[in-house]
Amino acid sequence: MNRLGVLISGRGSNLQALIDAIRNAELNAEIAVVISNEPEASGLTRGQSAGIETLCINHRDYSPRERHDQAVVRALQERRVGLVCLAGYMRLVGKPLLDAFPNAILNIHPSLLPSFPGTDAQRQALDHGVKVSGVTVHIVTGELDGGPIVLQRTVPVMPGDSPDSLAARILIEEHQAYPAAVRIMLAGRWKIEGRRFVNA
Amino acid sequence: MNRLGVLISGRGSNLQALIDAIRNAELNAEIAVVISNEPEASGLTRGQSAGIETLCINHRDYSPRERHDQAVVRALQERRVGLVCLAGYMRLVGKPLLDAFPNAILNIHPSLLPSFPGTDAQRQALDHGVKVSGVTVHIVTGELDGGPIVLQRTVPVMPGDSPDSLAARILIEEHQAYPAAVRIMLAGRWKIEGRRFVNA
Repeated sequence: MNRLGVLISGRGSNLQALIDAIRNAELNAEIAVVISNEPEASGLTRGQSAGIETLCINHRDYSPRERHDQAVVRALQERRVGLVCLAGYMRLVGKPLLDAFPNAILNIHPSLLPSFPGTDAQRQALDHGVKVSGVTVHIVTGELDGGPIVLQRTVPVMPGDSPDSLAARILIEEHQAYPAAVRIMLAGRWKIEGRRFVNA
Repeated sequence: MNRLGVLISGRGSNLQALIDAIRNAELNAEIAVVISNEPEASGLTRGQSAGIETLCINHRDYSPRERHDQAVVRALQERRVGLVCLAGYMRLVGKPLLDAFPNAILNIHPSLLPSFPGTDAQRQALDHGVKVSGVTVHIVTGELDGGPIVLQRTVPVMPGDSPDSLAARILIEEHQAYPAAVRIMLAGRWKIEGRRFVNA
């Protein structure tokens, strides 16, 4: 499982956190491939700079949408990827990808799920007026931001926070949380019970 | 505002936390009255032991339910209560009470709202598989567990937690959080913006 595939759509700052954790020997894994659905994603450059194979699989080139998922699955499987990490991947994960990697796709979300799923989670949190928010790393299932939770970390919401300032505070925790969650997954001492991720 | 009325239905452990915080001069307030809707509530004894006036206003003696709320309001107003603290009060707060104490009723809930409102919040959290839970003190509005959030504190969910063990861990934070939230309310440097409680 310790061959990772990282899916991105943008700058991929969490990709960088994984690259750094591996480089610093905090994470015993290898990133086999970085795949973006967006040709312009600046995260592709991060991957290349780190000497990692990068691919663009542009979703606009595939129809219907399952065909795009299938192309991504093929690329991952050809590189013997065991664990898929979404890092700002702005596509819904379709059935072909879910079926090919059961309980082996992680996502990172900038809220304490189940609060504030979906887009603009930091703004949702501010508008709701919570005093604590954070980050959730979870296994991806067919339910949006609803899969078993591997790890959560909290941050305070400060008076005067904007969505940007809160997002920046959460991002610092994200960069710790994602490598830590991957480490837990690779250690393999876990099971799924109901909708719970139980780590021994 | 620093004359408190505490409403209970049971053992009132958060009542005890308020009594202790006042006694230790951590909270500059006075509990003017403790009111239970349940004659058998053991929290009534806590109040009496602390030399506080205690009342039972049994909801079974009032019909329709607004009459019970009105009796509670009357008792609170006669004692010039400025801030009402629900401490395990198992009644919905009706319109008479909300109207008499606008933005002046606090409740404490054993989850990080908006996650897991309603009853059995600790079990809900365990079943969902969150890795962090906590406590929320919020202003009571017509929406169940939905009012502006004054304060939140977090606790980890541990592998092997039962609803009871998680509840016990949260309760320790509750006993810190409730006096702290009352202190914030009494300091008076806050305002409500939209659904947010903003403390200066």
